[in-house]
Amino acid sequence: MRAIPADSIYEQNLAKNSANYVPLAPVSFLKRAADVYPDHPAVIHGEKRYSYRELQARARRLASALEAKGVVPGDTISIMSPNTPAMIEAHYAVPAIGAVLNPLNIRLDAQTIAFILGHAESKVLLTDREFSPVIKQALAMLSKKPWVVDIDDLATSGERLGEVEYERLLESGDPEKPLDLPADEWQAIILSYTSGTTGDPKGVVYHHRGVYLNALTNVAAWAMDKHPVYLWTLPIFHSLGWCFPWTIPIMGGTQICLRKVDARVIYGLIAKYGVTHLSGAPIVLNTLVNAKDDEVTSFPQRVKVTTAASPPPASVIEKIEARGFDVLHLYGLTEVFGPMTICEWQYAWNELPAARRAELKARQGVAYPSVEEVHVVDPATMIDVPHDGKTMGEVVERSNTIMRGYLKNPRATQEAFAGGYFHSGDLAVRHPDGYIELKDRSKDIIISGGENISTIEVESVLYKHPAILEAAVVARPDEKWGETPCAFVTLRDGASASAEELIVFCRQHLAAFKTPKTVVFCQLPKTSTGKVQKFILRQKAKEIR
Amino acid sequence: MRAIPADSIYEQNLAKNSANYVPLAPVSFLKRAADVYPDHPAVIHGEKRYSYRELQARARRLASALEAKGVVPGDTISIMSPNTPAMIEAHYAVPAIGAVLNPLNIRLDAQTIAFILGHAESKVLLTDREFSPVIKQALAMLSKKPWVVDIDDLATSGERLGEVEYERLLESGDPEKPLDLPADEWQAIILSYTSGTTGDPKGVVYHHRGVYLNALTNVAAWAMDKHPVYLWTLPIFHSLGWCFPWTIPIMGGTQICLRKVDARVIYGLIAKYGVTHLSGAPIVLNTLVNAKDDEVTSFPQRVKVTTAASPPPASVIEKIEARGFDVLHLYGLTEVFGPMTICEWQYAWNELPAARRAELKARQGVAYPSVEEVHVVDPATMIDVPHDGKTMGEVVERSNTIMRGYLKNPRATQEAFAGGYFHSGDLAVRHPDGYIELKDRSKDIIISGGENISTIEVESVLYKHPAILEAAVVARPDEKWGETPCAFVTLRDGASASAEELIVFCRQHLAAFKTPKTVVFCQLPKTSTGKVQKFILRQKAKEIR
Repeated sequence: MRAIPADSIYEQNLAKNSANYVPLAPVSFLKRAADVYPDHPAVIHGEKRYSYRELQARARRLASALEAKGVVPGDTISIMSPNTPAMIEAHYAVPAIGAVLNPLNIRLDAQTIAFILGHAESKVLLTDREFSPVIKQALAMLSKKPWVVDIDDLATSGERLGEVEYERLLESGDPEKPLDLPADEWQAIILSYTSGTTGDPKGVVYHHRGVYLNALTNVAAWAMDKHPVYLWTLPIFHSLGWCFPWTIPIMGGTQICLRKVDARVIYGLIAKYGVTHLSGAPIVLNTLVNAKDDEVTSFPQRVKVTTAASPPPASVIEKIEARGFDVLHLYGLTEVFGPMTICEWQYAWNELPAARRAELKARQGVAYPSVEEVHVVDPATMIDVPHDGKTMGEVVERSNTIMRGYLKNPRATQEAFAGGYFHSGDLAVRHPDGYIELKDRSKDIIISGGENISTIEVESVLYKHPAILEAAVVARPDEKWGETPCAFVTLRDGASASAEELIVFCRQHLAAFKTPKTVVFCQLPKTSTGKVQKFILRQKAKEIR
Repeated sequence: MRAIPADSIYEQNLAKNSANYVPLAPVSFLKRAADVYPDHPAVIHGEKRYSYRELQARARRLASALEAKGVVPGDTISIMSPNTPAMIEAHYAVPAIGAVLNPLNIRLDAQTIAFILGHAESKVLLTDREFSPVIKQALAMLSKKPWVVDIDDLATSGERLGEVEYERLLESGDPEKPLDLPADEWQAIILSYTSGTTGDPKGVVYHHRGVYLNALTNVAAWAMDKHPVYLWTLPIFHSLGWCFPWTIPIMGGTQICLRKVDARVIYGLIAKYGVTHLSGAPIVLNTLVNAKDDEVTSFPQRVKVTTAASPPPASVIEKIEARGFDVLHLYGLTEVFGPMTICEWQYAWNELPAARRAELKARQGVAYPSVEEVHVVDPATMIDVPHDGKTMGEVVERSNTIMRGYLKNPRATQEAFAGGYFHSGDLAVRHPDGYIELKDRSKDIIISGGENISTIEVESVLYKHPAILEAAVVARPDEKWGETPCAFVTLRDGASASAEELIVFCRQHLAAFKTPKTVVFCQLPKTSTGKVQKFILRQKAKEIR
């Protein structure tokens, strides 16, 4: 870091002023889109269609109505909603009055929701009527309740819990009230709770600066053309929807809402609206790949699909590309605004066979363009591991797109930032070409006879077996070895395979100590974002006799 | 502006740290490109070709060699060079040691150069040998001389003025020395002098933050694909080359150097390297349009051309698009990092006839995506003029892409930022669709019998006359009317037209008071960036009897 001294000629009478220094805030993108493309469709949801002029007016109405209700800067506004116009509008309106939006994971149980609403000190809760039962339970557990607004969206029939319905609230607002910038770009914009596998959820606090930068960087990372059409197959509540609610207006694009991931509906929308981009966990890719013929509507365009959360099996990448999708593979975490790395494509790879191309694409890759540094380090010394594709280390990062920390949790915040880097808790190797390949979550790694086993490596072998739809591997306690690999698998419809057969298959591709000793056939438990819940499987593995 | 209070839960234990707050600095883009695309061609110049690995190594060598010579943060390093690898390398290396790069306009006279080197307190001067004569003169005028490095580029044979040649200097540097970030993103990065038409040139001080943001925004504004090939028809010394030295690495692209604008060479390079983007003043467009058949090499791709500096006549836009170029029209100033507005294309315009489309495209447009606010205001009240396409006002702006101010010139800085906005000094109208159309520089406007006359309006009529290659209109003092329009025109090769004929032609398209009363046939005097020097023409107009 080089500092110009205060007595330099460059530091005299050249201070920031209101003309040349504007807080970076993503609401600016909506304001510009409403100025430049007022009549372009901004949001489409079923029969509803809002232009940028209308979207801005709705966001202004919501902002002013919340202020009229007494919301002030620093207040928390929670929202329980799938990917609807109200959800998108809240992402602009709430930050524009200095308040902090807290999107809730719609799969959560009442107790966790009650914990979050209490911990976040929510002043207002906007809630889609589909979730009235669980929200009602949660509210009953709270001594200090937020003011509740019901959202009537398409075909929902849940009980009304609040004083006012969302559209009525909007009617009371002022469509001319300007959307405001934060006084400081470091101010909190969103509060998102991680679905912790142990202990209470932690509240990740995001800042305006990071959202602005990540939203703009997404355009470069995807090499996005003007007027993209973005389909919401990713839950917006998950890691800021990777900032796409704010990226799309930069390019004057259209957001297509979607309440549920359903192959037939997705293919239909892609064809109807000429969708150009979508994103999601590998489960979304799986849904698209495994769609039955009568669920698929053909479409002429290529659709760019960004996937993250866990490495997509090479076989899935190969199949989905044949269906008209180009896959971009990212890796990241809730704490880093979504993407931390991107598997940038190299020209030279075009020459390789399809299977090898898919393998390369399944690696997590290099720093996302907004990220300053990504390292794979020995956590004890913070020294980079050799780029040998073998030595495992922890992925750590420096970037403007990292959370401020965890709300009311200084200890967890300090741990996350130990040594001046953000610690991902993920284990990876670095290949000679600099690309990172994830090996495991630190807590997922299996240690058998003193050897580390990457569960991801074992899973990728299982995925190559034609009978297997999904697979997850965890540690099973073992008296002799300490732990051994235990595989949980779901077979394809109509396919069959025995445990012995799968173990023999694995042994052909893996060292003996890495080969699963146990195979269990079942449906895999998942989070709302499609991540396999390994803590449940670990518990099951312990209980196997 | 909404401020979250200091006692809010969102302001406890959530301060910036070295992991989540990184100064925005464009050198980060080169570092990432060298990591991700080490073997991709970064810079091509004649037979020379540097990969990103090599470009970074050369920048590191330059940075470390300058430090070894005693350069410290806040020092000024001047450079006199056309668009060469050395020029690009300096844009990365100098900021990476906290020093400030001062690119000189290569068309300047010795006296002005001496003024700038003295005013900027230049410690080092890198100078291409083509300019040895004028630099030698300039150095002779200075009591305190910078340390001089000669740049041997292609086919230059000027006298050596310094102790060391650029490539030798690089050899003395360390190719492994990391490029550094500034301690603060607000630090000065570039110092660029405006070619003031009166008085001494003013030194525009740019900051790292603005360059980073503008470079990244260029990707979105051009909807740039991966691996663009950018041809340097714009002088890099002019308004930071609109930040393209830093934009291209974001997308892993290639910069093609060019010492001089020459139609045959440009067409040759476009065909040879598959150029995708270039930019320049309308004079560059004119060069491409008016190229003789034997100067044109055909090419298969469409080339995106960004033009600024003065509105391109609709007739030129129409012709250049027929030659394989898609024109993007920007408007801006040195003080605002290049672009302030962009003529964003609207779908609905596709339906219009070609001539009308070109007219719409010749308007200056709407806020560039990095710009927070652009207004056309009554300068006395700072109130927006009506969006009626008629009422003229001054263009003012708020943006992170505005200079810190003028070096050692607090009075000019204060004037530029009067009322909390940057004042462009340009006069425009705002159309009902929100698009801005420039009418004139405030100092260029003609006031005849109390009526304002836009010289641009009169010029655009002259450009429609088939015999006219170039035209410029200025005020001529008049006893009766105060001022009257006086046209200076250059005819096309082989074309002829009388003054009377041109006046009659203008009268058919313009009100009588706007029609030129005088027509002078001549070559137009221009600045190095292709802008017509109206102050010379105004002087000539005064002297007409």
